[in-house]
Amino acid sequence: MTQLKNVTIIKKANIYFDGKVTSRTVLLQDGTKKTLGIMMPGEYEFSTELKEEMDIAAGKLEYKIAGGEWETIDGSGVFYVPANESFQLKVHTVVDYCCSYLAE
Amino acid sequence: MTQLKNVTIIKKANIYFDGKVTSRTVLLQDGTKKTLGIMMPGEYEFSTELKEEMDIAAGKLEYKIAGGEWETIDGSGVFYVPANESFQLKVHTVVDYCCSYLAE
Repeated sequence: MTQLKNVTIIKKANIYFDGKVTSRTVLLQDGTKKTLGIMMPGEYEFSTELKEEMDIAAGKLEYKIAGGEWETIDGSGVFYVPANESFQLKVHTVVDYCCSYLAE
Repeated sequence: MTQLKNVTIIKKANIYFDGKVTSRTVLLQDGTKKTLGIMMPGEYEFSTELKEEMDIAAGKLEYKIAGGEWETIDGSGVFYVPANESFQLKVHTVVDYCCSYLAE
């Protein structure tokens, strides 16, 4: 799915870590939400509220979900973070991602 | 207008200057196009094909359209770039912008 159709986009960007991580919020017709984001190289930690699907479209990173091992994605890949969990990222090259918030 | 409704967004990011300038392309129902973007601090030069409206929602920058003077926007502001023209930017803090491509 290369396009998201019939959606609402919130114009104002979400800006974290002095702009090294930014995203735009997309509201889908089914009531769910995605963010399309960019991460510059660096190390970051995030926490979830809902379960998240992190779909990496470009870039190289390592991720570690609390209690787990470091895993690498280079170029493209998907990982899931449970609700109410934290995860760490080491971003090595500019990452283009789509995060989907899942109700479970 | 804080939201763009009933639009199509292209998932893949537009990435320039090693990720220091990134944007997402939004296709509107009237056939026009906008990009929602982020610029990290730095100096950049761009060229237009269509006339562009650059609507700055956050950040501080200076801009100079070919043949013109340097002008400053701090926080919010709009400027226009004619079709087939170049413009320079000095971005001082993270800029959140919406660029509208105008048919004239």
